Amino acid sequence: MQSREIHLKRRPVGEPVAEDFAEMLVDVPEPGPGEVRVRNKWMAVDPAMRGRMSDAKSYVPPFRLDAAMEGPAIGEVESSNDPDFAPGDLVFSRLGWREAFTAPASALRKRPRGDLPSEAWLGYAGSTGLTAYAGLLRIGGLKPGDVVFVSAAAGGVGSLVAQIARLKGHKVIGSAGGARKAAFLRDTLGLDGVIDYREEPSLTKALAREVKALGADGIDLYFDNVGGDHLQAALAVANPHARFAICGMISQYNVTDKPTVPRNLTQIMVKKLTLKGFIMSDHLDLEPHLVADMTAWHKAGLLKEVNSVQEGIGHALDAFHGLFKGENLGRSLVRL
Amino acid sequence: MQSREIHLKRRPVGEPVAEDFAEMLVDVPEPGPGEVRVRNKWMAVDPAMRGRMSDAKSYVPPFRLDAAMEGPAIGEVESSNDPDFAPGDLVFSRLGWREAFTAPASALRKRPRGDLPSEAWLGYAGSTGLTAYAGLLRIGGLKPGDVVFVSAAAGGVGSLVAQIARLKGHKVIGSAGGARKAAFLRDTLGLDGVIDYREEPSLTKALAREVKALGADGIDLYFDNVGGDHLQAALAVANPHARFAICGMISQYNVTDKPTVPRNLTQIMVKKLTLKGFIMSDHLDLEPHLVADMTAWHKAGLLKEVNSVQEGIGHALDAFHGLFKGENLGRSLVRL
Repeated sequence: MQSREIHLKRRPVGEPVAEDFAEMLVDVPEPGPGEVRVRNKWMAVDPAMRGRMSDAKSYVPPFRLDAAMEGPAIGEVESSNDPDFAPGDLVFSRLGWREAFTAPASALRKRPRGDLPSEAWLGYAGSTGLTAYAGLLRIGGLKPGDVVFVSAAAGGVGSLVAQIARLKGHKVIGSAGGARKAAFLRDTLGLDGVIDYREEPSLTKALAREVKALGADGIDLYFDNVGGDHLQAALAVANPHARFAICGMISQYNVTDKPTVPRNLTQIMVKKLTLKGFIMSDHLDLEPHLVADMTAWHKAGLLKEVNSVQEGIGHALDAFHGLFKGENLGRSLVRL
Repeated sequence: MQSREIHLKRRPVGEPVAEDFAEMLVDVPEPGPGEVRVRNKWMAVDPAMRGRMSDAKSYVPPFRLDAAMEGPAIGEVESSNDPDFAPGDLVFSRLGWREAFTAPASALRKRPRGDLPSEAWLGYAGSTGLTAYAGLLRIGGLKPGDVVFVSAAAGGVGSLVAQIARLKGHKVIGSAGGARKAAFLRDTLGLDGVIDYREEPSLTKALAREVKALGADGIDLYFDNVGGDHLQAALAVANPHARFAICGMISQYNVTDKPTVPRNLTQIMVKKLTLKGFIMSDHLDLEPHLVADMTAWHKAGLLKEVNSVQEGIGHALDAFHGLFKGENLGRSLVRL
């Protein structure tokens, strides 16, 4: 069996270019004792992969040069030399960027078949879903009557935050950049307030306007994917005792000398706000609750299952580049 | 009976000057039905009084012109026309800035005599103490092994935060401005690490140095009285999951156009930090615990009872001005 896979050939400087990568055709060996051979069905790309292409010190080690990159993937067991796995099993791994692989059974986690489409395990039933779910419910402490604001609401995490909050009966204001995304928030997700931040000279005024249109005094919960101006607007328009779940500050990632910083941090004190940073992996105990809720919503047809899909390993890098063009809706996937 | 009291004659512009105030001699009437006549023993001054001298919109109404100002005071009942109060009772009121007054019984709260010195009810057993206690224990969630950092550690609230944390067995790093305050933190309060921020080109480096000297990796709890550079240093030197109790941001109060803002807010996310603003009056349920702990520590001689004291109503304005010269240690009081 052979597999095409994407190797990192050299570490990108700035924007990654085609020459930084190579598509290789490799043999996928028969599984030895304790090993399993898997044919990937889907892989996901996310912005954090850019970090691993560099060799800067970080939480996760950098990708190795001249080897296939890594990333979340869902696949099907093709043959197994391990008692815990059988052909046809659906498995999650970090061995994306390749069509097939042989790996120790310990690198795989079985996922149930049937209730959900396979790709859901890379999206709303996977770590993207858990980030939204834990951030909104546990970190943000969503409670009855809360008005919710979510930035990057058309993205993988943001679109789930918005939907979960709406499914739980809340008014939700979402922000995103560009008319297409704004239309998606309004028409597809049905949000109660929508901000196209590219069109707004003042995010604070825009947020205040959307809050007022809902007949509310302010926001009670802010799910922050962006930081900077968005955080400043949320601080300005927060109700007393509002909670901020700090999930990402994508506006600040590539900024070194002059980050855009909120000038109104005293609101934390004046309004008795709580800001909490978090990481999904601290909340794995919520996974069964996430899967139960998502499965029920999926079966009831209540979930908008939003993915930006590229077809085939040959377009995996296009999917990755698309992340930085700010044009993807929902989770960015590649069907393998 | 007569009383000297300090009236606000006009609203100060910028730094208050002598002409903004007048000392008046007034008659203090016999108490009518439901009224009590009180001779003040101590009053306290705090920076928030500056706000009430202006007529800007705020949480509390501005001081009236041509009337005695207000502020926390502890006094003794001189005569009473209310069944709940008797001569000799110790009472707390908001009727400071005067030597004596007659007021409805509802303006007074009785305080026990005996266990604590009278002025303690304006300091460690009063709202200053409750701010420190609630912020450190409830908002900051102090837990075994925490390394604590407190800014403005020589001030009324900060010196209590530092002491409570030390009495509960924690390593405490304090910052303050000037050699006299730094010596106070080291020699009187016995803090484990001391930063004189006026002497440090980089607060972050100074805090990292003090943390390292304790053999610690970072701080676990930051009690913020200052904001700005101090908050930035605390974010930089925080351990993962550290908690920040945001009590004040005095460095930002008089800044309108270019506040000093931390450039490293992404640390909230990266380190999974919790920042919580709070106000003492949301935590009045902790008052009995505060008083019990403070009384025990006082009796055991474990508390440094730090006040900057002026003598007599004639020096009340000196006490107030002293707040802004940054030279007061602990709580600023006037003995009446």
